[in-house]
Amino acid sequence: MDLWFNDEHTDTVKLSIKVEEQFFSQQSSEQHIDVLQTREFGKILVVDGDIMLTEKDEFIYHELLVHVAMAVNPNIKEVLVIGGGDGGVVRELMKYDSIDIIDVVEIDPLLVDVCKKYLPEMASSLDHEKVHIYHEDGVRFIRSLDDEYDLIIIDSPNPYGAGEGLFTREFYGLCHKALHDNGIMINQHESPFYRDEAFMVQRMHQKIVQSFPIVKVYQGFIPSYPSGHWLFGFASKAYHPLDDIKEEAWNALDIPTRYYATRLHKGIFALPVYVEELLKDVE
Amino acid sequence: MDLWFNDEHTDTVKLSIKVEEQFFSQQSSEQHIDVLQTREFGKILVVDGDIMLTEKDEFIYHELLVHVAMAVNPNIKEVLVIGGGDGGVVRELMKYDSIDIIDVVEIDPLLVDVCKKYLPEMASSLDHEKVHIYHEDGVRFIRSLDDEYDLIIIDSPNPYGAGEGLFTREFYGLCHKALHDNGIMINQHESPFYRDEAFMVQRMHQKIVQSFPIVKVYQGFIPSYPSGHWLFGFASKAYHPLDDIKEEAWNALDIPTRYYATRLHKGIFALPVYVEELLKDVE
Repeated sequence: MDLWFNDEHTDTVKLSIKVEEQFFSQQSSEQHIDVLQTREFGKILVVDGDIMLTEKDEFIYHELLVHVAMAVNPNIKEVLVIGGGDGGVVRELMKYDSIDIIDVVEIDPLLVDVCKKYLPEMASSLDHEKVHIYHEDGVRFIRSLDDEYDLIIIDSPNPYGAGEGLFTREFYGLCHKALHDNGIMINQHESPFYRDEAFMVQRMHQKIVQSFPIVKVYQGFIPSYPSGHWLFGFASKAYHPLDDIKEEAWNALDIPTRYYATRLHKGIFALPVYVEELLKDVE
Repeated sequence: MDLWFNDEHTDTVKLSIKVEEQFFSQQSSEQHIDVLQTREFGKILVVDGDIMLTEKDEFIYHELLVHVAMAVNPNIKEVLVIGGGDGGVVRELMKYDSIDIIDVVEIDPLLVDVCKKYLPEMASSLDHEKVHIYHEDGVRFIRSLDDEYDLIIIDSPNPYGAGEGLFTREFYGLCHKALHDNGIMINQHESPFYRDEAFMVQRMHQKIVQSFPIVKVYQGFIPSYPSGHWLFGFASKAYHPLDDIKEEAWNALDIPTRYYATRLHKGIFALPVYVEELLKDVE
């Protein structure tokens, strides 16, 4: 059978991937979840029709969400992950023995169950005793917190649907409050290429700049995401992502990676001229 | 009408783009050429079914082919472009008053005519008196040349069909011979992501390493190309692309760009771990 999944990048652009088998398809309380088997990307997790991750390139996304902050502060002990029910971020965090606490706020229990069944290489990390999963709304969870974490990672879906509240000025302010004085917030920051997403990049950046004293954007090649050019936000109360990198300390930890390395660290903050201009417009 | 163009990335992955109008479709002596109008990418030049360039992101590809070498040696005067009948590389080269000679070896005269008609913003640069176009095979053109150019840019199509000879050890050796003692060769180097292309990346890199003393690979985000992660080769007889960059001299030229900047220069040579490993395997 000739079965193709179309991931819509815009109204007039889509990535089509041939599907070998649809393993799972169900509506949860929050969203529609599909798991597909493909030849090129391995298993693909699809949420509300959009690719959330693929087995072939999820390492790029998850390494970039975790190791950049860890190289700036290798002493991070307490981490909050907003979203991240697939376990990819937690798998990367678990590479650091120094991390004591990993709280994961994943609103959708079905997403966790599905990932544990179909993507165990990632999701099995969620079973570790350091990890606590809270099936709550991220904004509600964080509201009462004060000075609790060294690192908050916002592994959010797109800024519509279930994750909408994670893209507000209020939420970034709550993250600031929930962080220690040397705290770092990392967020997936969408793509600068297509017009509608570039507009979201600007709106997010504007709100984060209003909430944190140090804010920089970095980038990575993620072929299964729209345009393949994906941005990440680094926001901090104290650390500059380039000036304060602990290159030797991080390399001494000997963390296994397939994408990130400290020799890349500066490079990923060097944005193309057109992306710099997009961000400067709202700074 | 619902008209979609499919650019095949692999047998099981394709990028589909809605087409507003097919402006041109004809078989030349070398290849099949199409020009499509799209909303998201503007005009698209398609050769043998593959996207060659789009109005929206061709600046990324062409800036990366030209300005990296020019920042390493801003005194470049004599340039050979293999391929490049669309005029994009020449448009970027024309930003340098110091360049005296631009020889373009484009085997297909129809490609040049089509680009002049439908993509004049690029192709009109080909009409300048500094530019000489030779409608010959690139390998044949370069065979008898010795110590002629400061820079050779290989703006080749894919390594099959018309451009096949441009991916051989013999051809890179001929480029070496055609360059001055401080000469630089830049080539489009395919993508490291999909398996078949990653294999081509390795084969090209291996042959170039055998032909030049200094060889480095750099990268850029080109969303309309397969995976969006595109590589470029920097090969040189004398200059190291990072150690020998003339940052101040290049910035003093005040070349207008939308992607390249010298603050990116180091960053684009910092390759992800998996790409480094791919290349090291054949060094």
